[in-house]
Amino acid sequence: MQGVHSVTIKGTGVVAGIAYAQAIWVRPRPELPSAGETVPEEAREAEFERFVAAADTVATRLIDRSHHHEGSAGEVLKATAGMVKDRGWRKAARKFINSGQAAENATVAATDKFVALFESAGGLMAERTTDLKDIRDRVLAELRGEPEPGLPEIEGQAVLFADDLSPADTATLDTDLVVALVTELGGPTSHTAIIARQLNLPCIVAVGSAIREIDNDEFVLIDGAMGTIIIGADPESSQESVKESRARAAVVAKWRGPAKTQDGHRVQLLANVADGNAARLAADSQAEGIGLYRTEMSFLSATEEPGVQEQARIYRKVFDAFPESKVVIRTLDAGSDKPIAYANMAAEENPALGVRGLRIANNNEPLLARQLDAIALAADGRGDDAPTWVMAPMVATQREAKWFAGLCRERGLIAGAMIEVPAAALMADKLMPFLDFVSIGTNDLTQYTMAADRLSPQLAYLTDPWQPAVLRLIRHTCVIGHDTQTPVGVCGEAAADPLLACVLTGLGVNSLSAASTALPGVGAQLADVDLETCKQAADAALESVGAAAAREAVRELILG
Amino acid sequence: MQGVHSVTIKGTGVVAGIAYAQAIWVRPRPELPSAGETVPEEAREAEFERFVAAADTVATRLIDRSHHHEGSAGEVLKATAGMVKDRGWRKAARKFINSGQAAENATVAATDKFVALFESAGGLMAERTTDLKDIRDRVLAELRGEPEPGLPEIEGQAVLFADDLSPADTATLDTDLVVALVTELGGPTSHTAIIARQLNLPCIVAVGSAIREIDNDEFVLIDGAMGTIIIGADPESSQESVKESRARAAVVAKWRGPAKTQDGHRVQLLANVADGNAARLAADSQAEGIGLYRTEMSFLSATEEPGVQEQARIYRKVFDAFPESKVVIRTLDAGSDKPIAYANMAAEENPALGVRGLRIANNNEPLLARQLDAIALAADGRGDDAPTWVMAPMVATQREAKWFAGLCRERGLIAGAMIEVPAAALMADKLMPFLDFVSIGTNDLTQYTMAADRLSPQLAYLTDPWQPAVLRLIRHTCVIGHDTQTPVGVCGEAAADPLLACVLTGLGVNSLSAASTALPGVGAQLADVDLETCKQAADAALESVGAAAAREAVRELILG
Repeated sequence: MQGVHSVTIKGTGVVAGIAYAQAIWVRPRPELPSAGETVPEEAREAEFERFVAAADTVATRLIDRSHHHEGSAGEVLKATAGMVKDRGWRKAARKFINSGQAAENATVAATDKFVALFESAGGLMAERTTDLKDIRDRVLAELRGEPEPGLPEIEGQAVLFADDLSPADTATLDTDLVVALVTELGGPTSHTAIIARQLNLPCIVAVGSAIREIDNDEFVLIDGAMGTIIIGADPESSQESVKESRARAAVVAKWRGPAKTQDGHRVQLLANVADGNAARLAADSQAEGIGLYRTEMSFLSATEEPGVQEQARIYRKVFDAFPESKVVIRTLDAGSDKPIAYANMAAEENPALGVRGLRIANNNEPLLARQLDAIALAADGRGDDAPTWVMAPMVATQREAKWFAGLCRERGLIAGAMIEVPAAALMADKLMPFLDFVSIGTNDLTQYTMAADRLSPQLAYLTDPWQPAVLRLIRHTCVIGHDTQTPVGVCGEAAADPLLACVLTGLGVNSLSAASTALPGVGAQLADVDLETCKQAADAALESVGAAAAREAVRELILG
Repeated sequence: MQGVHSVTIKGTGVVAGIAYAQAIWVRPRPELPSAGETVPEEAREAEFERFVAAADTVATRLIDRSHHHEGSAGEVLKATAGMVKDRGWRKAARKFINSGQAAENATVAATDKFVALFESAGGLMAERTTDLKDIRDRVLAELRGEPEPGLPEIEGQAVLFADDLSPADTATLDTDLVVALVTELGGPTSHTAIIARQLNLPCIVAVGSAIREIDNDEFVLIDGAMGTIIIGADPESSQESVKESRARAAVVAKWRGPAKTQDGHRVQLLANVADGNAARLAADSQAEGIGLYRTEMSFLSATEEPGVQEQARIYRKVFDAFPESKVVIRTLDAGSDKPIAYANMAAEENPALGVRGLRIANNNEPLLARQLDAIALAADGRGDDAPTWVMAPMVATQREAKWFAGLCRERGLIAGAMIEVPAAALMADKLMPFLDFVSIGTNDLTQYTMAADRLSPQLAYLTDPWQPAVLRLIRHTCVIGHDTQTPVGVCGEAAADPLLACVLTGLGVNSLSAASTALPGVGAQLADVDLETCKQAADAALESVGAAAAREAVRELILG
C-alpha cells in the first residue's frame, strides 16, 4: 500500500525496473558571469595565470578520476580532460583576457566561440557542445572556489535527478550506489537513455518541469517501465517492489536463447552493431546474429572514401564474429545527423528530410556500387548457414527498392530495405515483390509519422514508438509481409522494450534487433507469454488513443 | 505527328497548358571575380565611387522599370531597388574597398556578409537571399560593362528557360510574349511555380541537368500537364495542340460555379487567402467561400503580439469579404519556414519537424486562447449561412485534437484540424469524434509521408502530391470521415490540379480549397466527368506504383 499522501509524477519510462532510494540532484550549473569591469593591463598576465591554474586543476581532477574507471568511462574522462587542455581553447581565452576580460568571462567567451564552431560543423561535432559547456562550468566553479558542478559524491544509494546528464556525468556513475536516473529533458534516444540501457539502470526521461517538485534527499519510488516517480510511497511495500524487480532481473540474467513464446512461437533476436568490437561482444551474448550493422559509423571521421579492399576488410571484422549466423548489413546511412565527408551534400534547412541514406546514391550510384562490391567481397566464402543480407536506408518508392535490389542481385547479394519512411510502409504491397526482406526502423519511422524530430527534447511526448499511429504502419507492413512471404524485422529502439517486443510479435514481426545487452530482457518476457496474448496486446495497443494509453493497456494485459 | 527526330525531356509539370515557341534562356549569372590584386590606397576613393555609380545605375534602372508595372510587380522591383540602395550593404562594400579590394570583389564580399546574416535569421529572411544575389549579379555586370543578367528583352513569343527564376525576374514577365516557364530546379511549391500558377502560364520545374540540351532560339513544345518538353516536334501538329489548349482555356474562363460533376455530385470550391485583399479578390472569383485563411501571414513582420481587438480587426477584413459564406480560419501556423517573432522557439536542427503550429501553443496556451478570443470577436454577428470554422495546424494526436476543440467550443466556435501529420490521418478514427471537420494539407502531408523537405529542389521527385502513399492516407481519412459524418476538405496544392481534383472527389473529399485563380480549371474539369469516373480515377491512382504512373493512369482514363 502506498502512503495516503503520496504524489505521483509521470515521465517517459525508458528502462524498466523498480528502485527506491533518496533523490540526489546533480549539482546545478553555475550562473554565467555578467559583463564585469575591464581588468587593467598590468593585471592581465596574473589573470591568465589564474585561468590556467583553474583549467589545470579541472584537467588533473578529471584525469585522476579516469584512473579509477576502466574502459570507456575512463576514456570519456580522458577525452574531456583533453578538451580542457586544448591549446586552441586556451589561446582563445588568452585573447579575451588580453582584451581586458576577467578569467570567468574569458572562459565563457572562449567556450562560446568553440560552441559556435562545433555547431556550424553540425552532426556529431555539434553533439560535443555538451562536453564544452561541461568544461566551462567546471572551470567557472573552480575560478570561484565553488564545488565542482555535476555529479556529487554519493554516500548511500541514490536516484539521480538532473535536467539532463552530460557524458562526463554518466561516464563515472557508481552503479553500486546509483539505482536509477530521472531527467527533466531528453527522450527515449537521448544520451541519458542510452547510457541507462547499457548500465541496465531504471530510467525515466522527459519528466518536464514537474520534476522540480522533488527535493534533494527525499525518498522516491521509481518505476522505469511505468515512467512514474512516487513521493511519499510506503517504505515497506516499496522495498517489496524493489525485491520483486531484482528477482525479475535475476530471471532475465539467466535467460538463454533462442527466443520463443511460452507456446513455442520463435522470434529471432539479433544485435545492432557498429563495428567488429561490438559484433564480438554480440557473439558472446544471446544474439542469434546481427540484425543491423550500421556501416556509416565506421566512416564518420574518414575524409576520403576507403577503397573496396579496405572496406571489405572492415566489413569482414563484423562478418567474422558470426561465421555461422545471419548478418544484416545496411548500406551507408549518411546525411542528417551522421555526416560523411566523402558522401555528403550541401547544408540543408531540414537535414532529416533531406538528401540522406539511399538518396545520396541517387546522385552517386558508383559510391553505392563500390560499397556493394566491398560487401560481396567480404561475404565471399560465407556458407548457406551464414547468409549476408543487405539493406538500404530511407527507401521511399518502388523505383528505389527495385533499383537497389537490382544492384544487390547483380552481385549475388540478398536484397532488402529499411521501412522507415511512412510511404514505404504504406506502399509495402508495391515494394515487397522486389525485396527478399524488410526491416522496420522504428526511430525514424516514428519521427516522420509524428512529424517530430527524434532529437528534440520538447517533442519527446510525440516521438515514442508506442504511438498507435506507428504501430498501425507496422501492422500494415506485417500483413503485406505475410501475404508476400517477405520476412519483417524491427531494428529500432522499440525492439529493446520487452513489452513492446510482445506487441511486435503479436503484429507478426519475425525478428527483433537491438543492443545485445537488451536481448535477455526481451527474451525472458517473450518466454512468459503465449502468442495469443501477444496478439491481444497488439490489438489493445492499436486501438489505444495514444502512446501512454497503449503502454498502459499492454502492461495491464501482460503484467496484470 | 511529332517529327521522327524529336527528343522528349521530362520535368515536373506544375501548371497545365500547351505552348509552342522558341526557347529563350534567361541570361546566366556573371562569373564571380577571383581574388584580385590589392587596390593601392590612393585609388580606393575612386574605386568606391565606381561601386556607387554602378549600384546607382542598377537602382535607377529597377525604379524606371517599376513605373512600367502596376501592382505587386512594381512593388517587387521597388523593393529590390531599395536593397541596392541599402546603407548597411553599401557601408560593408566601402569597408572591403577601404581594405584594398576591387569594387567587384567588394560587391561580392558585402553581399556574402548579408547573405550569411539573412540565412542565420532563417525563414522568410533566408528566402530573400535570392534577391541579394540578384542585386550582386546586376551590379557586377554593370561594373564590367556587361548586359544586365536575368530576363532578356524578348521580341517574339518565347518559352523562358532558367536554372531558377528570381522574384525580380518574374515580377516583370510580359505575358503577351512569354508563353511558358521551364526551370532546372524548384518544385511544385517553388517561387516559379507559384508565379506561373498566378499568371496561368504552362510551367515545368525540376527538369534537372537534361535542361542543358535545349539551345537558345530552338523551338520547343511544352506540355505543362505532362511535364514534357519536346525538341523537334512537328510545327503543324504543335500549333494544333496549342489551339486545342487555348480552346480549353476559353472553356475554363467561361466556367461558373458552384462546382459539380457531370452527374451532379457537388464539390465545394473554396479559396486559400492570406489577408483581406486576397479575400476580396476571392469574393470576385468563383470561390464559394474561404477554405484556408492562413492567419500567420499577417504577423510575419510583427515584433509584438497584436492585442485581441487588433487581431479581430484584421480577421474581420477577411470575414467581411464573405458575409454570407463559410470561412475556414487556421490558427497560427508559426515556426519552420514562417517564423513569428512573438511566438517562436529557439533555432532547431530540423524546423519542419520541430515546435511549430499547434505545438507552440502547447507551451503557451494563453497565446492560442487570445487568438481564439479574437476570432470569436471577429465572427460575432455572422449569420447561420456564414459559419466560421476554426482549425489547428500540425495536430498529431487525439489529446491535441480534444484540447483544441475544447478551447474552440468554450468560445462557441466550430472546431477542426488540419490533417498534415501522417499520424493524424492514421489515427483519424480516434480524432474525428472530437472534431466538426478536417482539412487535409497535402503539401506538409506529402513532405512527412515521403520524409522529403518540400522546399528541397533535389527531392522534388518525391514531394509530389500524386504519390500513391499520400493518396492512400487521404483515402483512409475520407473513409473515416464518411463513417463519422465529418466533412473532409483538401487545402494544399493538390486541390489546384484539375486531374488530381477528380481523384480527390473520387476518394470522397467534400471540398477543395486553392488559389482562387485555379478554381475555374478545377470546376471545368469536374463538370466533364461523372462521379463513377472519379472513383475509377481514384482506384487507378491508389494502385499505381509511383507519382508519375498515377498521373499518367488518371490522365489516360479521363482525357483519353
